[in-house]
Amino acid sequence: MADPTQAYFAGTDRDRAAFEAGIKLGAIVHQFVGAPVTEATAPDLERAIESATKLQPGVEAVRVRLDRGRIDPRGPYSYTYLQEDMLHVELTVRVGSARAVAALRYVEELDYPLMYLKEIGGPAKS
Amino acid sequence: MADPTQAYFAGTDRDRAAFEAGIKLGAIVHQFVGAPVTEATAPDLERAIESATKLQPGVEAVRVRLDRGRIDPRGPYSYTYLQEDMLHVELTVRVGSARAVAALRYVEELDYPLMYLKEIGGPAKS
Amino acid sequence: MADPTQAYFAGTDRDRAAFEAGIKLGAIVHQFVGAPVTEATAPDLERAIESATKLQPGVEAVRVRLDRGRIDPRGPYSYTYLQEDMLHVELTVRVGSARAVAALRYVEELDYPLMYLKEIGGPAKS
Amino acid sequence: MADPTQAYFAGTDRDRAAFEAGIKLGAIVHQFVGAPVTEATAPDLERAIESATKLQPGVEAVRVRLDRGRIDPRGPYSYTYLQEDMLHVELTVRVGSARAVAALRYVEELDYPLMYLKEIGGPAKS
Repeated sequence: MADPTQAYFAGTDRDRAAFEAGIKLGAIVHQFVGAPVTEATAPDLERAIESATKLQPGVEAVRVRLDRGRIDPRGPYSYTYLQEDMLHVELTVRVGSARAVAALRYVEELDYPLMYLKEIGGPAKS
Repeated sequence: MADPTQAYFAGTDRDRAAFEAGIKLGAIVHQFVGAPVTEATAPDLERAIESATKLQPGVEAVRVRLDRGRIDPRGPYSYTYLQEDMLHVELTVRVGSARAVAALRYVEELDYPLMYLKEIGGPAKS
Repeated sequence: MADPTQAYFAGTDRDRAAFEAGIKLGAIVHQFVGAPVTEATAPDLERAIESATKLQPGVEAVRVRLDRGRIDPRGPYSYTYLQEDMLHVELTVRVGSARAVAALRYVEELDYPLMYLKEIGGPAKS
Repeated sequence: MADPTQAYFAGTDRDRAAFEAGIKLGAIVHQFVGAPVTEATAPDLERAIESATKLQPGVEAVRVRLDRGRIDPRGPYSYTYLQEDMLHVELTVRVGSARAVAALRYVEELDYPLMYLKEIGGPAKS
C-alpha cells in the first residue's frame, strides 16, 4: 500500500479505522464549539464542519446536523454559541478493508453528548 | 437607549466601537484557526465565519477572504489547516453614532498577520 | 515611537487601547472555551490563559478566575467543559499614554457573560 | 461493567480504546492550536493540556511536550502561536482489558505532524 504513514502504525486497519474516527469527532467538537450560531446560520456552520471533516484522512462520509431545538439564545442578544449538546454527527472512515462508523449525539438517558462507535468491521487480527 | 449592557461600560460609544471590533477579530482567529481547509472548501469556511460574525453585537458588515495562495497543503495529505496568515477580514461595528472599521490581514512588510483599526469615528468625549 | 505597526492604525492611542483589549477577550473565549475542566484542574487552565494573554501586544496585567460554583460536571463522567459563563477575566492594556481596563464576567441581571470596558483613559483627540 | 455508555458502542474494548485515543488527540490539537506561546510559557500550556486530557474517559497517562526549537517568534512581537508541528503528545487509554498508546509528533520524513497508534492490545474478537 502506498500510504507513507502506515509504517508508523501499530495494530490493524480496523484499529486505525476506529482511531481515525475518534480523531475526527474530537476535532469537530474542539474546533467548532464556541462559534456564534442561530437557527438561521446553522446551515452555514453545518456545511463548513462537513466540508472540513471530509478533507481528513480516511473519511468517506460525514453528516453534521445542529439540533435546532437546542439553539436557544439567551441574554440581551439574539444568538448563542455552538455547544456539544447541539451537535449530531455521523461519519464513516475507511482504512484498507476496515470501516468504522462513529457518531456524536446528545443522549437523553445519559444527559450527555456521547461519542461512540456505531459500527466497526474488517480484519481484526494483528 | 434600550441596550441593557450599556450601564456596564466606561467610556464613549467610540471607545466601545473600537473594543467591540477587537473582540470580533480576536474571536475569529481563535475560533477558526486550525480548521482543515483547501482551496475547494475555502468558500464554505469564509461563509461560516462571516455568518457567525454578523450575529455578534454591533456588527454592521463583515467580509472574510482566505488567501488562496497561502492555502498550501503539505505532507502526505492534500489539505492544510487554517492559519492566521491566510485570513483577510474587514468588518464594521456601529455603537450609537460611532463606527469602527477593523481589519486583519497578513502584512508583507511586517511578515505578520496584523489586526488594526482602519477607520474610527464618532463622538470621542467622555 | 518605534512600534512598526503604528502606521497601519487609524485613530488615537485610546482607540487602540480599547481595540486591543477587545482582541484579548475575544481570543480568550474562543481559544479556551471547550477545554475539559474540573475544580481540581481549574488552576492549571487559569494559569495557562493568563500566561498566554500576557504575551499579547500591550497587555500590562491580566487576571483569570474560573467560577468554581459554575464548574458543574454532569452525565456519566466527572468533568465538564469550560464555558464562557465560568470565566472571570480582568485585563489592562496600555498603548502609549492610553490605558484600557476590560472585563469579562457573568452578569446575573443579564443572564449573560458580558465583555465590557471597565475603565478607559488617555488622549482622545485624533 | 458499570459504564452506562457501553450499551451504545459497537465492537470490542480494543476498538473503543483506539477510538478514545483518537478523540483525545483530535481534541488536543483543535482545542489548543492557536494559543499564544513562547519558550517561557510553554510549561504552563503543557501542564494545562495534560491536566485537561487526563480528565477524559479512559485516559491513564498523558505527556505533552512543546518542541522548544519550533517555538519561533516572528513579526514585530516576541511570541508565536501554538502549531500542531510543535506538539509532542503521548497518551495511554484503557478500556476494560484493552489498552491503546497513541502519539502525535512531527515526523521529519513526512514533513507532517502525525497522529498514530504506537501500541494497541487486548481482546480483538467482537
